[in-house]
Amino acid sequence: MHFASDNTSGSPPQIMAALLRANDGYAMGYGNDAYMARVRDQMREVFDAPEAAVYLVATGTAANALACAIACPPWGAVFCHTHAHITEDECGAPEFFTNGAKLVLVPGTHGRMTPQGLDATINRLSPGNVHSIQRGMVSITNVTEAGTVYTPAEVAALAATAHQHSLPVHLDGARFANALIATGATPAEMTWKAGVDIVSFGGTKNGLMGVEAVVIFDPAKAWEFELRRKRAGHLPSKHRYLSAQMEAYLEGGLWLELAARANAKAALLAQGLAQVPDAILSHPVHANILFPHFPPGTHARAEAAGAVYYRMPAPDGREAARFVASWSTTDDDVQALLTALTP
Amino acid sequence: MHFASDNTSGSPPQIMAALLRANDGYAMGYGNDAYMARVRDQMREVFDAPEAAVYLVATGTAANALACAIACPPWGAVFCHTHAHITEDECGAPEFFTNGAKLVLVPGTHGRMTPQGLDATINRLSPGNVHSIQRGMVSITNVTEAGTVYTPAEVAALAATAHQHSLPVHLDGARFANALIATGATPAEMTWKAGVDIVSFGGTKNGLMGVEAVVIFDPAKAWEFELRRKRAGHLPSKHRYLSAQMEAYLEGGLWLELAARANAKAALLAQGLAQVPDAILSHPVHANILFPHFPPGTHARAEAAGAVYYRMPAPDGREAARFVASWSTTDDDVQALLTALTP
Amino acid sequence: MHFASDNTSGSPPQIMAALLRANDGYAMGYGNDAYMARVRDQMREVFDAPEAAVYLVATGTAANALACAIACPPWGAVFCHTHAHITEDECGAPEFFTNGAKLVLVPGTHGRMTPQGLDATINRLSPGNVHSIQRGMVSITNVTEAGTVYTPAEVAALAATAHQHSLPVHLDGARFANALIATGATPAEMTWKAGVDIVSFGGTKNGLMGVEAVVIFDPAKAWEFELRRKRAGHLPSKHRYLSAQMEAYLEGGLWLELAARANAKAALLAQGLAQVPDAILSHPVHANILFPHFPPGTHARAEAAGAVYYRMPAPDGREAARFVASWSTTDDDVQALLTALTP
Amino acid sequence: MHFASDNTSGSPPQIMAALLRANDGYAMGYGNDAYMARVRDQMREVFDAPEAAVYLVATGTAANALACAIACPPWGAVFCHTHAHITEDECGAPEFFTNGAKLVLVPGTHGRMTPQGLDATINRLSPGNVHSIQRGMVSITNVTEAGTVYTPAEVAALAATAHQHSLPVHLDGARFANALIATGATPAEMTWKAGVDIVSFGGTKNGLMGVEAVVIFDPAKAWEFELRRKRAGHLPSKHRYLSAQMEAYLEGGLWLELAARANAKAALLAQGLAQVPDAILSHPVHANILFPHFPPGTHARAEAAGAVYYRMPAPDGREAARFVASWSTTDDDVQALLTALTP
Repeated sequence: MHFASDNTSGSPPQIMAALLRANDGYAMGYGNDAYMARVRDQMREVFDAPEAAVYLVATGTAANALACAIACPPWGAVFCHTHAHITEDECGAPEFFTNGAKLVLVPGTHGRMTPQGLDATINRLSPGNVHSIQRGMVSITNVTEAGTVYTPAEVAALAATAHQHSLPVHLDGARFANALIATGATPAEMTWKAGVDIVSFGGTKNGLMGVEAVVIFDPAKAWEFELRRKRAGHLPSKHRYLSAQMEAYLEGGLWLELAARANAKAALLAQGLAQVPDAILSHPVHANILFPHFPPGTHARAEAAGAVYYRMPAPDGREAARFVASWSTTDDDVQALLTALTP
Repeated sequence: MHFASDNTSGSPPQIMAALLRANDGYAMGYGNDAYMARVRDQMREVFDAPEAAVYLVATGTAANALACAIACPPWGAVFCHTHAHITEDECGAPEFFTNGAKLVLVPGTHGRMTPQGLDATINRLSPGNVHSIQRGMVSITNVTEAGTVYTPAEVAALAATAHQHSLPVHLDGARFANALIATGATPAEMTWKAGVDIVSFGGTKNGLMGVEAVVIFDPAKAWEFELRRKRAGHLPSKHRYLSAQMEAYLEGGLWLELAARANAKAALLAQGLAQVPDAILSHPVHANILFPHFPPGTHARAEAAGAVYYRMPAPDGREAARFVASWSTTDDDVQALLTALTP
Repeated sequence: MHFASDNTSGSPPQIMAALLRANDGYAMGYGNDAYMARVRDQMREVFDAPEAAVYLVATGTAANALACAIACPPWGAVFCHTHAHITEDECGAPEFFTNGAKLVLVPGTHGRMTPQGLDATINRLSPGNVHSIQRGMVSITNVTEAGTVYTPAEVAALAATAHQHSLPVHLDGARFANALIATGATPAEMTWKAGVDIVSFGGTKNGLMGVEAVVIFDPAKAWEFELRRKRAGHLPSKHRYLSAQMEAYLEGGLWLELAARANAKAALLAQGLAQVPDAILSHPVHANILFPHFPPGTHARAEAAGAVYYRMPAPDGREAARFVASWSTTDDDVQALLTALTP
Repeated sequence: MHFASDNTSGSPPQIMAALLRANDGYAMGYGNDAYMARVRDQMREVFDAPEAAVYLVATGTAANALACAIACPPWGAVFCHTHAHITEDECGAPEFFTNGAKLVLVPGTHGRMTPQGLDATINRLSPGNVHSIQRGMVSITNVTEAGTVYTPAEVAALAATAHQHSLPVHLDGARFANALIATGATPAEMTWKAGVDIVSFGGTKNGLMGVEAVVIFDPAKAWEFELRRKRAGHLPSKHRYLSAQMEAYLEGGLWLELAARANAKAALLAQGLAQVPDAILSHPVHANILFPHFPPGTHARAEAAGAVYYRMPAPDGREAARFVASWSTTDDDVQALLTALTP
C-alpha cells in the first residue's frame, strides 16, 4: 500500500533488461553512445519534431532549472503557478541556474493558471522599466501539483498569452505521459502545436531509475544547453545507462502504457473513495494523484494498516492525504487502501 | 582494445545484481532508503571516521563542485594544479557552484603540486587585502591527470602547507581506489590522517554506472551540502539505485579489487611498452593511466587495428596516446594493443 | 513644484561646503581617509552602538543588496512586504547579490507587515525540508513604500517574530531620518533596541549626492561585507567624497533637521489636500510621501500648471499621485501644488 | 610629495564648479537628466561614434565588470594579461558579474600581451569541447598595470587576434586619457578603429570624484547593460552629479589637458631619476606611472622626507617604488621627491 509518490516505485522489467543489455562492452561517454543517437530519433518521432534538440539528465529539478536557464535571463521573471514544483520543491534551483531570476507567482484554483490570471500577473511588470525585473518566461506544469491536467487547448491559451508578451513557454512534464493519457492528446498537440518551446519530459516518476529528457523545439539554444548542463555537473560520463533506459521507455509506447496503468489505478481509487463516508476530494482527479481529506481518525487507521502516503492540512481543520498511483500500483493495493480508509 | 577512458567500461556483475535486487518493491526517495543507511555505515568504516557525513551524487563534476562550494567562499581562491580536472574539464562548474571563486593554478611536473610550489602560489595572495580575492582552499587530485599518484606523505605535506594558511583541503578522488592500490595506503591514511577535509570518492570510473560519494569529515558542513546538492538538482528521487550500487561496491572490498585489476593491466601495458621501439612515456606510470608517445605512423597503425584512445600533442612534434586501463581490461586487450603498436 | 521624488532635490549648502573642503589636497583612497574615521565615530554615537561596523556606498540598492547578502544564504528566503523596494524596484539586485535567494512576500495594508502576517508567511516554509528554500531573514522598510511608518514598538514586534525563528533583521532605512522624525524615536530605539541587526541608513533622499551607510551591529560580519562591497564594485577609490558628505550630514544633527523639513511640508500638503474637493488619500500620511487620488481632470490640470510627480492606478478607476516632499520643498511649492489641484 | 596613486588627488576647479552648478534646483533621477543627454552627445563626438551607447558608473571595477558581463557568458574565458587589474585588483568582480567566467591569463613583459602570446593562450581552449570553458572575450588594459602603453597599432594587432577567433574586445581605460597623450592617438584610433568593442573610459584617476563611462560601440547590448547596471546597484538616483562632472571633464578637452599634465610630471620624474645613483626602472615609462627600484636605505630616506607611495619586491632583493603622477602633481613635488631619493 505504497502511495507516497510515483518515485517510490521501481522500474519495470523492460527497463531492467535494457540496462543489462547496455552494460555489455564499451561505449563512448558523455552522450556519444549509440543508444542516445536512437533516443534522439525516437523522441523527434514521438513529438513529430524532426529538428528538436534532445538531452537527458538524471533529475527533474535539473531538467526544469536548465530549461529555465536557457529561456530566462537573470533579470527575468519566471511566471508560474503559486504552487508549481519549481517554486516550492526545488530549493531554489531555478534561481541558482538562472543566476537570480525571480519566480513570479500566478494564483489559480486546483493548481492551474488561467490565461486571465497569467495575463494580469504579466501586466504587473512594465517592460522597459529598468528598476523592475523584466518579463522572462512562462512555465506550465502538466500534470499540475494538484493532480489536475491542462488540456491542449488550455495549454494553448496560456501559451498564446505568453506569446502575446513575446515570452517563451516551458512545460514541466514530470508526469507528461500521465497528462497525455488523461487528455488523449498527442505529444505534439500538448506541446509545440500548443505553443510550448521547451519540455521537461519526465521518465523517473513513470518507471525509469532517474532519467528525464529535455526537448527543445528551437535547436538554436542547444549548444548553450549543453554547456550549462556540463557546468552544472549533469552530463553523465557513462551516459549510455540513461540512454538505454529512455530507449526502452519510448520503444513500442511503453511509456504511455505505464502511465495508463497509473491513471487507471487512480481512477479506481477515486471511484472507491466515493463510497468512503465523508471522504472529500480537494481537487478533481484527472491523472494519477488524489487529494482526499477525511474525518478524524481515518489517517491513524490507514497508517496502522500499513498505508504509506503524505499528509497535509485541509480545509476545516481536517487533514488531506496525497495518494499517488504509479505504473506498479495494483488493484489489490487500491482495494487494501480503500478497506483501511473505510471505518 | 578500448583504452579511451575508464568511464567507457561497463559495470561488473556484482553491481548489476545489486541493482536488480534494489529494484524490487518500494523505497522512500531522496536518500531515505535503507541502502543509504548501510552505505553511510560502510563508508565511515572504510574511512575509520565514525562522524563523517556521506552523500552520493551522479557525477564527479557534481562531487567536486559541491565540495568546493562548501569549502570556499565566492571571493576565495581554489589552489589546484595547472592541469587539474576541476580547472580544465568541468566547464567552469567550480566557478558556477561557488558563485565565482577563482581557480589559482599551481604548476608542477607530472601533474603534481609540490608543497613549495603551493606555498609560493598561496603567498602571492595577501590576506586582508580587500582588492584581491582571498585565499580559499586547496584541491588535490589523486590519481592526478598525468596518471601519477601522491603518497600519503606527499598529500600530508601539501595539506600541512594548506593548514599553515588555515585553508581546508579537498581531495578529488575520481580514481581514489587506484591511488590506494598504487600506494598501499588505507583510506584514512590518504585522507583525514594526512589532513584532507573533504573527499570526492569516485565510483564511476571504477565500475559503477554513475555514482560518486562525497565524504565530509567535519559534519558541521553537512546540512549546507544537502541544500546545495538539492538546489543543484543532484538529489535523486530514486536514490536507492545509487545507494545499492555503492553498497555493493564497498561490500567485501570489491572497489579495491576492481582498481587493483585496472592498475595491474596498466603495469602490464607499461612493461610491454618498454619493448616497443622508440615508445617514450611522458609521465611515470603509477596507477591505471599511461601517456606514451610514438614515432610517426604508430597511431595510424594502432587505430587501424581497432585501438580506441585519445591523442594529444607531445614533445618534439610527436603525438602522445592516453591509454586508460579499467577493471574490465583483459590481458588479451593489452597484448592486442602492444601488437598493434609494434612496427 | 517638483514632487516626483526626494531624489530629484539637490544638496544643502553644508554638504556642498564639506565637499569643497574635502577636495583640498591628497587623501588615501578606499575608505582610509580621515573623514571616514570620523564618520565611523559619529555613526556609532548616533546609534549608541560603540561596536557597530559602518560602511558607505553610493546607492540604496547597493546598501540593501549587500545587507541581504551578508544576512541570507543563497537558499534562504528574504521575508519582506509585497511592495517592498527590494522586491519591486531594484531589478533583482537582492537575488543577484545573494546568488539567488528568494524574496517571499508578506501582504499587509498600507505597506506594512504585521507580526501575524509575517509569522504566517514564515511558517509556510518548513525548516529542515531539503526540497524547500529555507527561512533566511526579514527585511523591514521604514518609511514604507506606502509612505507609512512603523513605530519602534511595531519594528520590535516584527523583529521578535523574526527572532523567534532565529532570523536576522534588516531595516531598509532609505528614509530612516523621516521615520525617526515621524515617531520621535532615537536611532537606537528604532534599530538594535528593537531587534534590528543591519540598517541601510539613507542619505541620498535626504540631501546627499549619493551616499548611504550600512550599519552592522554585529561586527563579525564586517570583513565579509567589505569583500562583497569591493567585489560588487562599490568601494570607491576617492572615498573621501562620500565620507565628507556623511560627516557633514551627521554633524550637529543636520540629517534630522532636513528630514523634519520634508515631513513638515508633507504635513502641510496633507492639510491642504483635505480642502481639495474629492481628494482621497490612499494611505495615511506619516512622513514625507502622500498618495492622494483625484477626480478626472485633476492630473491634467496639475501637470499643465507645472507639477511634476508620478501617477499610478487607484481604486474605482481613478488615478493616484505620489507626492514626495524633500528637505528643499518650500511652502510656496506646497501652496502652488494645492492651487493647481483645486478646480 | 604624494605619489601613491592618481586616485589620491582631488578634483580640479572646473569639476567643482560644474558640481556646484548642477546642484541648483531639481533634476529627474537615474540618468534622465539634461547633463547626461549632453554627455552622450559629447562622448559620441569624442569617439566619432554617433551610434555608441554611453553610460556612467561610479567605479572602475563596476565599469570593467559590467563590460565583461555583457561581452562574455558565464562559461567563457576572459583573456587578459597575468597582471591585469581585473584579475588582481577587483576581488573577483568580473567573476561575480559574469556569474563565474574564468580569467585566463596571458603572460607578457612590462604588463603587455603580444598577439602571439594571446593567440597561443586562446588556442589552448578548444571551441566545441563541452568539457572546457569556451573562448569568451579579450580584455586589454591601456595604460597597463606596469605603466606601459599600447599604441593603436598594438591594440589593433591584439584585437585582430581576438576577432580571428570571433571574440569581442574590451579596453580597460582607467587611464585612457594618459594612453592617448602618450601615443598621440585619437579616441577612435585607440578603440573602434583598432577593433575595440567596449571601453571603460576612466575619469576618476584623472580628476573626477568617482565617475567612469562605459562606451559600447554596438548599441545592441545597451539595454542589457542598463539592466545589469541597475541590478548591481550602479544606477545612481541623483545621476546628475555624475553627468555634470563628466560634462565638464569632456568640455574643451579638459580631460586630455589633465592627463597631459600628469604624463609630463612623470616624464620629468623619469628624467630626474636618471641622475639618482643606482636607480633602475623596472619598466619603461610611457605615461604617468614609474616603477624604479633603489639601493637599500633609499626608501627609508624618502619616506622620512614625507614621500608617500607603494613599495613592492623587485629583482635582486631590492624594493621597487610605484610612483604615480596625477593632474595635480607639481614640479616642486617632483623636485622634492628627487631630492629625497638622492643620497
